[in-house]
Amino acid sequence: MTDLLIADVRLGGHAPVDLHVEGGTIAAVVPAGTSRDDAATARRIDGAGLLALPGLVDTHAHVDKSWWGRPWQSYAGEPGVQGRIAHERERRDELGIPSVATSRAVLAEMVRHGTTAVRTHVDVDLGLGLRGLEVVREAAASYDGLRLEVVAFPQDGVLRRPGVMELLDRAAAAGAEHVGGLDPASIDRDPVGQLDGLFDIAARHGCGIDLHLHDGGDLGAFQVELVVERTERLGLQGRVNLAHGFAVAQVDPARRHDLLQAMGALGITMTTVAPLGLPQLPVAELDAAGVGLGLGTDGIRDLWSPYGDGDLLGIARQLARASGLARDTDLQRVVDLATRDGARFVGGTTQDLVAGSRADVVLLDAENPLDALVRTPPRRLVVAGGRVLHDDLS
Amino acid sequence: MTDLLIADVRLGGHAPVDLHVEGGTIAAVVPAGTSRDDAATARRIDGAGLLALPGLVDTHAHVDKSWWGRPWQSYAGEPGVQGRIAHERERRDELGIPSVATSRAVLAEMVRHGTTAVRTHVDVDLGLGLRGLEVVREAAASYDGLRLEVVAFPQDGVLRRPGVMELLDRAAAAGAEHVGGLDPASIDRDPVGQLDGLFDIAARHGCGIDLHLHDGGDLGAFQVELVVERTERLGLQGRVNLAHGFAVAQVDPARRHDLLQAMGALGITMTTVAPLGLPQLPVAELDAAGVGLGLGTDGIRDLWSPYGDGDLLGIARQLARASGLARDTDLQRVVDLATRDGARFVGGTTQDLVAGSRADVVLLDAENPLDALVRTPPRRLVVAGGRVLHDDLS
Repeated sequence: MTDLLIADVRLGGHAPVDLHVEGGTIAAVVPAGTSRDDAATARRIDGAGLLALPGLVDTHAHVDKSWWGRPWQSYAGEPGVQGRIAHERERRDELGIPSVATSRAVLAEMVRHGTTAVRTHVDVDLGLGLRGLEVVREAAASYDGLRLEVVAFPQDGVLRRPGVMELLDRAAAAGAEHVGGLDPASIDRDPVGQLDGLFDIAARHGCGIDLHLHDGGDLGAFQVELVVERTERLGLQGRVNLAHGFAVAQVDPARRHDLLQAMGALGITMTTVAPLGLPQLPVAELDAAGVGLGLGTDGIRDLWSPYGDGDLLGIARQLARASGLARDTDLQRVVDLATRDGARFVGGTTQDLVAGSRADVVLLDAENPLDALVRTPPRRLVVAGGRVLHDDLS
Repeated sequence: MTDLLIADVRLGGHAPVDLHVEGGTIAAVVPAGTSRDDAATARRIDGAGLLALPGLVDTHAHVDKSWWGRPWQSYAGEPGVQGRIAHERERRDELGIPSVATSRAVLAEMVRHGTTAVRTHVDVDLGLGLRGLEVVREAAASYDGLRLEVVAFPQDGVLRRPGVMELLDRAAAAGAEHVGGLDPASIDRDPVGQLDGLFDIAARHGCGIDLHLHDGGDLGAFQVELVVERTERLGLQGRVNLAHGFAVAQVDPARRHDLLQAMGALGITMTTVAPLGLPQLPVAELDAAGVGLGLGTDGIRDLWSPYGDGDLLGIARQLARASGLARDTDLQRVVDLATRDGARFVGGTTQDLVAGSRADVVLLDAENPLDALVRTPPRRLVVAGGRVLHDDLS
């Protein structure tokens, strides 16, 4: 019984194939035209020779913060991380943030751009408690097949807001896949204190850690070292991620080499949103050290910034272009980071266009994956776990 | 007699209007629903409440170089300007570059993204002579209403290739609106010699100068000063443009202030392609000094780089975001640079959505111009000089 037959699609420039989907998984990949289209096929979609990519994985989002779908909100905050935090605290209630409706609206934008799996940070603080986590889970449930993991994220600080560490503990107990943190030095003024607390929660509950680290240069690099030390000491190999990690791109090559080697050995990964105006994380150096890299859209149209459109492929292009990548192998590497290799950030299920993989498939009108990356054409079909979430083929 | 009635469109969030077009010009802007739709209206288009923007102006393109529409070309050049030049010389003939077909293909991409006027550099060198100029003029003639100005561009150097200065002179005599130049110091190794030659041509033929200046820091700033001195000496006020001008963004604020003041006083403009990985030209400082700024797409999918999609609004977004602009007035300023204020780079005709302006109009589904900038939605209708060049409304 084939639940879904996606017929006549191309994989990276090769001859067209048919993808057979059963129970949310790719059951078979066969040459186009050789599939028997019989009564056992519940649904058949004609891919019309379009290019197929694995579903995009957004490894760093903030789907709770967005005001997508509401009238334009003029940005009026002060610059800097602290200015943006204050602006958000001041205005979010009147905008009804977080809400199921706005989280659902921004997830819809992500899905129609080909994202089939999301790791999203969700604000946890003294004002909201854990309400945001419930809101986001409920919004994601509207998209059957979409995978979503949450990071309980202390946007307003941890130690500087007594009670937040306990909230993170409760979030982990309630099933949050990861606990987050934020610039332990510059925000909490106590890097050891914040990190010790987060690692303690992760060790006790068996969840992951996904730490926002904007702190740059030596201060940021020092905190990366603190993370490395605790990951090893507590045996949290493969469960820790550094988001942004600008410092890794900023320090000199020798120190970066040492940091990346230590991270790679402990399975500490990184996520980037390919920030404009800052040096990019060097993909080849992370690869050489075995440091997994995920791409993310960051906040989308929220009280931090009016930018963002939910297109993870656009972020991949931005990373590639800002990194000066032009050769085919380098461009393909970025496509893989945005698709196949993103799976490790959302539960690790294999996500590729081969039999046995989760059926996360995106069709678009492109010559090959490199063309898709540099041109980011509209997504024509988006399938997640065998479910059609977006269909612009007809 | 109304040639074209574009009914029910919104201008920047105000009440909907009808745009009456006569003879390529906006004849009247009246409240929506008050236009008499009679036999005197040759064509009526229902704008369905979409947002209207003035046509986008691409002030720095290379439409002769592209391989758009051909199969994917793997990039294989060495890094740096010289490596790219060599790679291009090596492969352009086999790809049939320049050709009317590929120039037309890339112009089509620009037009369907809302560009209604283009200033394009066109390679002039010992191999091609002036053939590229004819090719590009012929390609542009396919798009009735599209304005196009050419810069005769010595991509491979001027003085270092004896005979090229004479080619530029012939190009100016044959009607090229501008002569170009390229890094007089780092490429020709003789900044005074190249600039003196270009300024002599411009003074004799009455054409403009549009100089590529990648040279950074002090070396670039010195060449800006040489340009300023010659502009004043030869009375070429308002006829000189600096493309890229990375040095202006790189030097310290005091020196930048002096450079910009001198440029502003002489009507020397700048064009930028909002390069990723480099500091952006500071819009507010250019405005304060009265230095006009145009935006461009640069090369699109050519032997220099596989990137580029012809979307000038995407470049505007890139400039805004990489500059950290978030407030409404700053975002609107960038929209104006990409549309209304671009007109000075292509002949100076007024280009705004008011009576008396050239009828260059773009419709898109956005709440207001700021929303259009940060989200760059598809262009639904593109009208240039009253001619419909792209229509995705039906």
